[in-house]
Amino acid sequence: MPRYVDHDQRRHEVAEIARQIVVAEGRKALTVRRVAESAGYSTTVVSHYFSDVGELLHATYEAAAARTRARFTAVVEADPLDVRGLMEAVLPLDAERLADWRVYYAFWSEAIFDPDFSELQRGRARDTTKRLDTMLRGLAAEGRLGADIDVAHAAGRLGALIPGIAGLTVFDPTGWGAARQRAVLDDELRLLGIAPRRG
Amino acid sequence: MPRYVDHDQRRHEVAEIARQIVVAEGRKALTVRRVAESAGYSTTVVSHYFSDVGELLHATYEAAAARTRARFTAVVEADPLDVRGLMEAVLPLDAERLADWRVYYAFWSEAIFDPDFSELQRGRARDTTKRLDTMLRGLAAEGRLGADIDVAHAAGRLGALIPGIAGLTVFDPTGWGAARQRAVLDDELRLLGIAPRRG
Repeated sequence: MPRYVDHDQRRHEVAEIARQIVVAEGRKALTVRRVAESAGYSTTVVSHYFSDVGELLHATYEAAAARTRARFTAVVEADPLDVRGLMEAVLPLDAERLADWRVYYAFWSEAIFDPDFSELQRGRARDTTKRLDTMLRGLAAEGRLGADIDVAHAAGRLGALIPGIAGLTVFDPTGWGAARQRAVLDDELRLLGIAPRRG
Repeated sequence: MPRYVDHDQRRHEVAEIARQIVVAEGRKALTVRRVAESAGYSTTVVSHYFSDVGELLHATYEAAAARTRARFTAVVEADPLDVRGLMEAVLPLDAERLADWRVYYAFWSEAIFDPDFSELQRGRARDTTKRLDTMLRGLAAEGRLGADIDVAHAAGRLGALIPGIAGLTVFDPTGWGAARQRAVLDDELRLLGIAPRRG
């Protein structure tokens, strides 16, 4: 096997260890030394893949974002008008998605005051809202949306509900279990005139 | 004037300087040295009021929370069923309220992994949702809510919309100006059958 595959694999392995530390204990717990200890490597080896904690952090964030994108894409490919599916792909409905939100929020405080991270976050949020807007327009065109619905406001609201529910759930996973998240979402979709979930 | 008044005043002054640093530059910029320099005091004087950065941070958070509570209380005292007013008291509709959210989010990343802070956040969010629930039930009792509205779900959703809109606005204040925040909120209230704003 060529050497770069091994390099990519080990880099991925180191990033995964970093992610687990961030999910369990937060950003402050993430150090090159800590990752090296958990991986059973020397800090020199870890530093070969990630020059500093900032790079490790970025890889962790990117891994969570990539998982979210993959879920997103799967929904849109299965049904390009599946608003409910798109929301559920991002909401913290299970341990994996909640862990991704813990990763995002572990950076949140720094991200707000970092222009590059802010731009990344802003772009991601705008993309999500735009996607929701397109879906709602598609539903309206097929007569599957309430007649008096303002699509732009509804898309903005659904886009805001995602970080809103996630922000409550990370602090209150008991109060905001999957059933309540789905019920609150379904109730909004009902008001928008979107058909209830099947089955 | 008794000595403790001077003590309280100076403590407040130091906390206000800490708040301004956090709002402008984030949590990482907050150090006892930095506060001392901005205040024109020695670090010894600052340490007399706040034993460490953690205490300063807590005072900053508390000051933001107290301002939010005061706005909250003013709304409820003026009209105990003013759902729109309650939401607007917390949403980042102006520079002061946006600054308070920047303070909250500056702690967010630590708060998630800190059991005490988590409990505080959880309690605040649950109180807000409960207050919204009570207001919606009051409106329903007066026939001022749509007939088919699920109050618990609507209260949960309005409670989630607050951090949701705030979370988008801190990264995208241009995309989420006051007019859009109000429009998205009013559109939800319209779907709930709540009368539009007056004037």
